[in-house]
Amino acid sequence: MNGGDGYQSYAKNSSFQKGAIEVAKEIIEEEIRNKLDTEKLSSSSTNIICIADFGCSTGPNTFHAMQIIVETIKKKIEKQLSVSHQMPEFQVFFNDRISNDFNTLFASLPQDRQYHAAGVPGSFHDCQFPKASLHFAYSSFTLHWLSEVPQEVADPLSPAWNKGKILYYGDKNEVFNAYAAQFAKDLDSFLKARAQELVFGGLMALLVCSESNHTKNISTITFPSFELLGSCLMDLAKEGLFDTAKVDSFNIPMYFPTPNELKALIEKNQDFSIERMEILNYPPKRFTTPDSKSFAIFIRTLIEALLQSHFGSSIMDELFRRYEQKVEESKLLSNPDESSMMTFVLLKCKQMT
Amino acid sequence: MNGGDGYQSYAKNSSFQKGAIEVAKEIIEEEIRNKLDTEKLSSSSTNIICIADFGCSTGPNTFHAMQIIVETIKKKIEKQLSVSHQMPEFQVFFNDRISNDFNTLFASLPQDRQYHAAGVPGSFHDCQFPKASLHFAYSSFTLHWLSEVPQEVADPLSPAWNKGKILYYGDKNEVFNAYAAQFAKDLDSFLKARAQELVFGGLMALLVCSESNHTKNISTITFPSFELLGSCLMDLAKEGLFDTAKVDSFNIPMYFPTPNELKALIEKNQDFSIERMEILNYPPKRFTTPDSKSFAIFIRTLIEALLQSHFGSSIMDELFRRYEQKVEESKLLSNPDESSMMTFVLLKCKQMT
Repeated sequence: MNGGDGYQSYAKNSSFQKGAIEVAKEIIEEEIRNKLDTEKLSSSSTNIICIADFGCSTGPNTFHAMQIIVETIKKKIEKQLSVSHQMPEFQVFFNDRISNDFNTLFASLPQDRQYHAAGVPGSFHDCQFPKASLHFAYSSFTLHWLSEVPQEVADPLSPAWNKGKILYYGDKNEVFNAYAAQFAKDLDSFLKARAQELVFGGLMALLVCSESNHTKNISTITFPSFELLGSCLMDLAKEGLFDTAKVDSFNIPMYFPTPNELKALIEKNQDFSIERMEILNYPPKRFTTPDSKSFAIFIRTLIEALLQSHFGSSIMDELFRRYEQKVEESKLLSNPDESSMMTFVLLKCKQMT
Repeated sequence: MNGGDGYQSYAKNSSFQKGAIEVAKEIIEEEIRNKLDTEKLSSSSTNIICIADFGCSTGPNTFHAMQIIVETIKKKIEKQLSVSHQMPEFQVFFNDRISNDFNTLFASLPQDRQYHAAGVPGSFHDCQFPKASLHFAYSSFTLHWLSEVPQEVADPLSPAWNKGKILYYGDKNEVFNAYAAQFAKDLDSFLKARAQELVFGGLMALLVCSESNHTKNISTITFPSFELLGSCLMDLAKEGLFDTAKVDSFNIPMYFPTPNELKALIEKNQDFSIERMEILNYPPKRFTTPDSKSFAIFIRTLIEALLQSHFGSSIMDELFRRYEQKVEESKLLSNPDESSMMTFVLLKCKQMT
């Protein structure tokens, strides 16, 4: 994600992601009320409730989500509080990769927050917390990011070589399978790490960018939007700005599972029980990115850092100028049926501590 | 402190501070062995030991100090471990002001660290952690920073007006008293906050920049070095770069207590028992800053941000060019008897949790 708070920053271009927590708010509140064993939590010796957001980026979305979670847990505990017990204190951990812009995150922490804040740098595919130290985990718009591009898709000698494309939108099954296998491996690492870190009975809410199916009858704008970006890169290559091999070797480390695929992988992992799973109709109209300019900036915010480290920063402005134009011409954003899909999953940690 | 890792950064100019932990290393190890109740800690239900460095800056000194503390606690616990208990996990919290460069801190975290790391942004004069959540606190080269300049020293109508000077090196008792009162207030806030955050029996190691006495027979280089900087600012003002009133209204928020003064303030606070107090002969020769150029960069690293926000950034290079020259001419660094003083204090939290 782009750091800072400039006009191409994540901080200024993440209203799309904000919408997800808005849509999921009621479900999360309901699940905390029904499934979080706050009596046990608030009677523990430490009297501290620890919450972590995995892949928090720079805010403000993470603050909004954490506020919803803290307030809902507080409300539930208030009803149970006896005179002998004090309201627990809340400690919220904001996790993201080391390269995340934590300075911007910290500078924008809400003044009136009801929790102690800490930043935790490191990949969420590994353990980042002591065993059984978290009570609630949250991760939104993050699991579609792979820990790395599957190696074979950038290998000209592999049948999975993804020549001239930047995601698995082509016709090769081998490319798709390599991406799917990487996602399965990454999700398993993520779940294994969280199972270590969460207390027995701890909850985890996931908002996962998904696809309804993996056939070519794609109903969302995800693939066409990256296909357009790939074609812009190929145009620049053909005009001689860089070799086409440079595009061949560039692939975006993203994968969008179907809800069924996600369910099967979580069940295979066995560390968590699925307490609730729901496909959110997201984004609702009011959050839909309105025009090609905003959409181009939105995509730029997400993957500019990846593009820069491969192609250099000098082509970025031209690339996204062309991209905006192609988005405009393609009518990508004009079809009201084409929305991306969001899957909500609530998991409970089965691990004995 | 200057962020980043450039040649004028704290990260590249803090070998002076590093020396302090080197000198205090053996004392800290000895005190952990003798005074930290690790049997109680390692038998707690969570099996996590939490350590915090208050005023960590950007590293690498904080990493060195945390490594010493973690390793010493581990060694002590290893000797006590029964088959039924696992070695606790360690969580280290790096605290500093919100404006600290946490990005640089996180990027330089040791790969082979034996703890989970977290950054905690916020003033150490307030609570930054849940009640009774820390087992060991550490703070080095930090308490001489005041939370603010005492208001009266910048007030032309006050008898404590510090006209033409930038620290309390002048003749006015009122200026000195205002600084001393601010330090007393800040130390009390610091101790009150830590008393909330530490468990009963938790330890706190402090390395405090001190003065042997507050008379004019100053034995350290601290005051002459700031007096020279003040005179450089006055020179620039007299040459018309800014009004002399700009110097009158600038004061550095620093105060260096005597060991006896520190002791009296800690005893007055009552939250902690003083387990050990020692004046370290610091810096030893090998850490002494060798030449006026390095010394000027060292001072620049410490207070450039303060100077910039008052005088603007355009004069910084010229100011420190002149400063280096004055340091050179003054023979400030040539007198081997003139060293700054460091007081080590080990405190135990008396608070009942």
